[in-house]
Amino acid sequence: METIAPARLIETLSRRYATKQFDAARKIPGDVWSTLEQAAILAPSSYGLQPWTFVVVTDSAVREKLRAVSWNQPQITDASHLVVFCAKSNLVRADVDRYIDRIARVRGVSRDALAGFRDMMLGTVEAPGADHLHWNQRQVYIALGFFLSAAAMLGVDACPMEGFDAARYNEILGLSSQGLSATVLAAAGYRSAGDPSASMKKVRFDASDVIKRV
Amino acid sequence: METIAPARLIETLSRRYATKQFDAARKIPGDVWSTLEQAAILAPSSYGLQPWTFVVVTDSAVREKLRAVSWNQPQITDASHLVVFCAKSNLVRADVDRYIDRIARVRGVSRDALAGFRDMMLGTVEAPGADHLHWNQRQVYIALGFFLSAAAMLGVDACPMEGFDAARYNEILGLSSQGLSATVLAAAGYRSAGDPSASMKKVRFDASDVIKRV
Repeated sequence: METIAPARLIETLSRRYATKQFDAARKIPGDVWSTLEQAAILAPSSYGLQPWTFVVVTDSAVREKLRAVSWNQPQITDASHLVVFCAKSNLVRADVDRYIDRIARVRGVSRDALAGFRDMMLGTVEAPGADHLHWNQRQVYIALGFFLSAAAMLGVDACPMEGFDAARYNEILGLSSQGLSATVLAAAGYRSAGDPSASMKKVRFDASDVIKRV
Repeated sequence: METIAPARLIETLSRRYATKQFDAARKIPGDVWSTLEQAAILAPSSYGLQPWTFVVVTDSAVREKLRAVSWNQPQITDASHLVVFCAKSNLVRADVDRYIDRIARVRGVSRDALAGFRDMMLGTVEAPGADHLHWNQRQVYIALGFFLSAAAMLGVDACPMEGFDAARYNEILGLSSQGLSATVLAAAGYRSAGDPSASMKKVRFDASDVIKRV
């Protein structure tokens, strides 16, 4: 099994930064973009339910509208690609059944053989007071993490963004009627040569402050 | 800038799976473990506030106690390492100031030069009705994503876990008194040769179901 050297991984993750100025003329090549989509798809989620949709926005008129409800941040329009990571607003029995059907098909097993797993998921999904939106949003952030890690590995710059009006995103992209809720964004592309953020030292607390050993 | 080939990244992320049975005799080497800790530390967070603590549990007696409040799942005790990803339960002005102090020190700039950024963060942190715990928990899931991606790249097996009694974790690890809330776990180590999950096909919905293009 081929792996990468620890030092190289750290170097790669250290080079990553939240890109503020993208080179609007540079586009991510198709094979690289498709790999980034795959990285998000391959992220794990609770039970494997994948309670998400990734909306890839390349239409420039739509991106102008989104920028206007994102504090006018230039990454929204200037990056090669913009992904709106959406959580399912809810989870119901039909979502569990759709997933069970998918497992049965992919693994060639019967639905009966999956009855125990289905019941376990229904116990969670149909629990009184279950907060599906927050649960789903947390899963979406795993996919964001996978996407950003993958971008770093592939030499693509990216900027995760929470500074946007989610309700307006839901309207502009017609998300609510699809049962989706805009949760977090990633702009991805290549840094502009003049981005002052690129040369700033990364700020992290000391490891002794954030790692506790028991 | 050295990058990895798209096909190799996909192969690596496809090989990753939620490991159910760990080889209890195999430990992660020190340099690899330290790289995994660094990967979590290097994850991005909103404003860079790092509203988290990663509790690394290696003490076997403590892990037995944790297993008892984690549906008796064997990964808790059998994996080489167990990380409890904790969110700060709250965020207050002092957290912002501690972060501003850190930026000033790392980048060699004055606190005055950071006043605008500080005000922006305080506007979010002190907004009426701000839900800090959920916000912080979402950030923690980015760190989880970075940790799991890094593990895959390094050839380390891992299992993200939400099936545990967070309130009991908070008690056993004394987290609440530190202002922390156990949010999600990762067990990490090496799969047992007999883990039936290792050979199961990964189940994902079709890309056309989870990717929308605008």
